[in-house]
Amino acid sequence: SLARRCHHHSTAMLDMPFLPFCAFLGTLGLLCVAMVGTWCQHWRGGFSLDGSSRTFNWHPVLMVTGLVVLYGAAALVYRIPNTWSGPKLPWKVLHGSLALGAFVLTVLGLAAVFRFHNSQGTPNMYSLHSWMGLATVLLFSCQWAAGFGAFLLPWAPAWLRALYKPIHVFFGSSILMLSVASCVSGINEKLFFSLKNGTMQYKLLPAEAVFANTLGLLIIIFGVLVVAALARPSWKRPDSDSPDSRQVRGALGG
Amino acid sequence: SLARRCHHHSTAMLDMPFLPFCAFLGTLGLLCVAMVGTWCQHWRGGFSLDGSSRTFNWHPVLMVTGLVVLYGAAALVYRIPNTWSGPKLPWKVLHGSLALGAFVLTVLGLAAVFRFHNSQGTPNMYSLHSWMGLATVLLFSCQWAAGFGAFLLPWAPAWLRALYKPIHVFFGSSILMLSVASCVSGINEKLFFSLKNGTMQYKLLPAEAVFANTLGLLIIIFGVLVVAALARPSWKRPDSDSPDSRQVRGALGG
Repeated sequence: SLARRCHHHSTAMLDMPFLPFCAFLGTLGLLCVAMVGTWCQHWRGGFSLDGSSRTFNWHPVLMVTGLVVLYGAAALVYRIPNTWSGPKLPWKVLHGSLALGAFVLTVLGLAAVFRFHNSQGTPNMYSLHSWMGLATVLLFSCQWAAGFGAFLLPWAPAWLRALYKPIHVFFGSSILMLSVASCVSGINEKLFFSLKNGTMQYKLLPAEAVFANTLGLLIIIFGVLVVAALARPSWKRPDSDSPDSRQVRGALGG
Repeated sequence: SLARRCHHHSTAMLDMPFLPFCAFLGTLGLLCVAMVGTWCQHWRGGFSLDGSSRTFNWHPVLMVTGLVVLYGAAALVYRIPNTWSGPKLPWKVLHGSLALGAFVLTVLGLAAVFRFHNSQGTPNMYSLHSWMGLATVLLFSCQWAAGFGAFLLPWAPAWLRALYKPIHVFFGSSILMLSVASCVSGINEKLFFSLKNGTMQYKLLPAEAVFANTLGLLIIIFGVLVVAALARPSWKRPDSDSPDSRQVRGALGG
């Protein structure tokens, strides 16, 4: 029928291949990392471990790199079509390792801001940014530990893996949304803290404000695209836990 | 097989019915509206139209009510199983009307903050919060106009509807994520502006800060749950644009 043909036609037009999309996303992620580094180096005085605001500067760099970009890469591993055939274990190890790398950078990023606050006598954990950020990191640690226990260690029974998998997938996307929202509120708050004197006030939009606002928008676009890619049915790995799935797909001619 | 049985077992355990979920979500949304109203009434001096900070107070209330809660309700209309049979037009009108209501509240919410800034001599549109928020509202206006033109007016051809529908669905979830991130950065920024004197500093976590931080976390949970519900395959309306879909589902015994 016409409607059916139109539907196929439009689906084909929108059916972007995953790998070019991934190359675009990788470029966008690297741009975010380069921009947060440039912001802290060029406008905020660079990096050190002395407890000053130059110690704080590690916080945005490590969070954007770990909890957004590397986390996004980890989340997308099973969307690579090459992973759909052959043994799954190497890809599980890759997924878990990238997530572990993201987690280590995240913990270092937390350590940077706690060290800065403590050396300045500023309380920790009062702002909505800090509450949301810490909730994100705590959820991420539970997610990593539960994923490791259920999917990489050999002794989890099949029913437990099948029960936990959709929960793991749900929290995977949710944690990324939380971390993007945390980054945005953090950039916004840091600009209000830093830009408040004379011609350099945030409300006068100096170059630094335009640059960091743009960084915030790019982080949002990166996060939205990763979450959308994760939700896209045609990019999902066919479910090998269900032994009948191959037959069902065969019967449908897919 | 055992794995297959386990898979079915676990799916059944996680296969929450939509309507109880919806009741929970509605309660959570009303709680967010009540809390943002209480925050502005009890701690921020209430509401007026005189250009003072009491005019600003309409901004968070209207944005949380319109761009988050009512928008979320509009987005979920097609997930109600009652809408899956019978004519689609009444549900389209409901979806479009709820979205229009959300849009009207959003524009009033923008008007409140512009009027406040203008009467105080504060520049508009400098912070990352304002950039992200305005981008959200602009995307929402395009989304509403394009949805109205493609799906409610009678002259859009079937191929155009089929082409645009996944784009509309994608932007539907993305705009909600953006609006939640905007709310969170706005609450965070407002608390830094308002709580800065003596024992009422934000960093000392007075009751208002705990209350508004909690509101921020509840808004995030609301947004994540709506986006997750939208992405859940088993809650999606069977696609009536494809006349073969009924047969395919019949053949699968679903």
